[in-house]
Amino acid sequence: MRRVEVSLGSRSYDIVIGEGLIDRAGAEIAAVLPGIRAVVLTDETVARLHLTRLEIALQSAGIGSTSVTLPAGETTKSFAQLERAVDAILEARLERGDAVIALGGGVIGDLAGFASAIVKRGTNFVQIPTTLLAQVDSSVGGKTGINTPRGKNLVGAFHQPSLVLSDIALLDTLSPREFAAGYAEVVKYGLIDRPDFFDFLERRREAIFAGGPERAEAIAISCQAKAAVVAADEAEHGDRALLNLGHTFGHALERAVGYDPARLVHGEGVAIGMALAHRFSVRMGLATGQDAGRVAAHLQAAGLPTEIAAIPGPALDRPTLMEAIAQDKKVSRGRLTFILTHGIGRAFVARDVDRADVERFLDEELAK
Amino acid sequence: MRRVEVSLGSRSYDIVIGEGLIDRAGAEIAAVLPGIRAVVLTDETVARLHLTRLEIALQSAGIGSTSVTLPAGETTKSFAQLERAVDAILEARLERGDAVIALGGGVIGDLAGFASAIVKRGTNFVQIPTTLLAQVDSSVGGKTGINTPRGKNLVGAFHQPSLVLSDIALLDTLSPREFAAGYAEVVKYGLIDRPDFFDFLERRREAIFAGGPERAEAIAISCQAKAAVVAADEAEHGDRALLNLGHTFGHALERAVGYDPARLVHGEGVAIGMALAHRFSVRMGLATGQDAGRVAAHLQAAGLPTEIAAIPGPALDRPTLMEAIAQDKKVSRGRLTFILTHGIGRAFVARDVDRADVERFLDEELAK
Repeated sequence: MRRVEVSLGSRSYDIVIGEGLIDRAGAEIAAVLPGIRAVVLTDETVARLHLTRLEIALQSAGIGSTSVTLPAGETTKSFAQLERAVDAILEARLERGDAVIALGGGVIGDLAGFASAIVKRGTNFVQIPTTLLAQVDSSVGGKTGINTPRGKNLVGAFHQPSLVLSDIALLDTLSPREFAAGYAEVVKYGLIDRPDFFDFLERRREAIFAGGPERAEAIAISCQAKAAVVAADEAEHGDRALLNLGHTFGHALERAVGYDPARLVHGEGVAIGMALAHRFSVRMGLATGQDAGRVAAHLQAAGLPTEIAAIPGPALDRPTLMEAIAQDKKVSRGRLTFILTHGIGRAFVARDVDRADVERFLDEELAK
Repeated sequence: MRRVEVSLGSRSYDIVIGEGLIDRAGAEIAAVLPGIRAVVLTDETVARLHLTRLEIALQSAGIGSTSVTLPAGETTKSFAQLERAVDAILEARLERGDAVIALGGGVIGDLAGFASAIVKRGTNFVQIPTTLLAQVDSSVGGKTGINTPRGKNLVGAFHQPSLVLSDIALLDTLSPREFAAGYAEVVKYGLIDRPDFFDFLERRREAIFAGGPERAEAIAISCQAKAAVVAADEAEHGDRALLNLGHTFGHALERAVGYDPARLVHGEGVAIGMALAHRFSVRMGLATGQDAGRVAAHLQAAGLPTEIAAIPGPALDRPTLMEAIAQDKKVSRGRLTFILTHGIGRAFVARDVDRADVERFLDEELAK
């Protein structure tokens, strides 16, 4: 069992990583939040697989709980489901000192975290992420929120959990596509500022996909990497923006396909986005084509897409993508901000990126 | 013109109090937030009276803005109107560095502040309160939120404004009943810990109602009083609870009449609640009947109710009130918390109040 501390002063908390953790969830939670009651928010898919084990674990530690099961899928991150979750939490008469527990992937974590942030202006919050993506990304850092018809994650709050329990055995229930999508975020930490970690991933990718100690190691390093950035810049004024490597392009692609998971899931959008960020950096004379090629090759070996044209369905066009980029919340007073790179492990925040350069680059990519 | 600073470290801000401030709003805002765009949220009543003046003031300072007019009244503090406000802010492509401006009373301030807190996880926020209640209470301290069918202000966020502009001349458009309701919160600050201020109010009540320097003085002292409490305890873990003097009973009464403003508005609920808190304190042997009598006499002279029976419509019963008290978010793990008092200006937080004592007291009050 590994523990990664996220250092945020009085709001510091631990991420616990290990096999079979869900069966000890009650004891782990009671140690941090003694005497509480809880509302568990989950989705239909996860409830079928894991909810009973969690309920038994909570009960055995004396934590009274009620469970609310929402529909599975990205469309659950909506005002309508938020209102439903909030109402269920209020119906259970949860008090500020009690906890909302998110059992699920990023969608449930983001929605439950946001509901927890706003009910009575903030209740305690515990995350039990059940996907690789949630374990290495969305459960770390306190970003919560929902989508609106105008874009992804455009409404939300910063709300830190009291505890994160990452049971790596739960990942065995994921489809290969879902596991690969989460792996894109693992690769991202290497690409931002940990070239040694990227080397490790290149050498040990097959072992990580198979499970075992390499998997736990990769998840722990990913959490440490994100925790370090978040601790330095909780509210995303500066370096936290580095975590958006691949995300400005990625979000635009997701938006352009109407968030249709049959065409593109978040991690795949990030994989294409990271490949694009590296090629755009080459185009701007910042990085070598060799590094961009190495990144694309690793993502492809992991079963991830690296080209816009790899997205199934109708071809995307440049105006649609530029419109989606302009609506991204990382736009600062009209200037475009991208995460670009000088090479593997050498990403940086580029504010004031010229719109025309992005347009030319997208035209080239779309003409491939 | 008076300035009251709310000291909250990097989130400190000024409350500016004066006559005709709305016409200088653009310049005041541009001085604090240079180069921004803005979305003005207001309601139909206030828009008719004051919106054009504000728009001219913003324009003359070079602040581009769009305005959104919502229905007037407490029912606007709903998920549906929140979603509408959020969508309007996103439609205007407001960025994190831009500002949401609330032009209106407490309802607009709470709703706009909450929308500003959650759009892109937080944009800048400016308050231009147009009622006495909003100028002395809801615009100070950063509490924002909406109601749900289960209770008032059960969903929200702490989100501090960058600036508050209180134009006391706008209060001349209020009905006498609305002015009196706001005055209940002014009285509250005297009753919490400023007996000298209560003396001043007893002596100068008529002048304050008539307008002029006494009114500005009373508003500035009220803002100072609230700012001092908020600075000491922003997130309401301790002494900030003192601001709830009269509010546990008051909220329960508002809830019991279904938030029907024809029967009871917030300030009237607080007036009755403060009278009840003082009589309950007498009943518990904490305060003298003389102090409770003085409080009731002053509130009555200001045109405010001090008895549950003064609420028009069907009589209220004890189970309804106890149920409403139990749902209040100030309940901590099942124990009842009330603000009680040792006399005028000597309020304190009483946790662990015995439910049976409250029930007996309510029975006596309802039997009057």
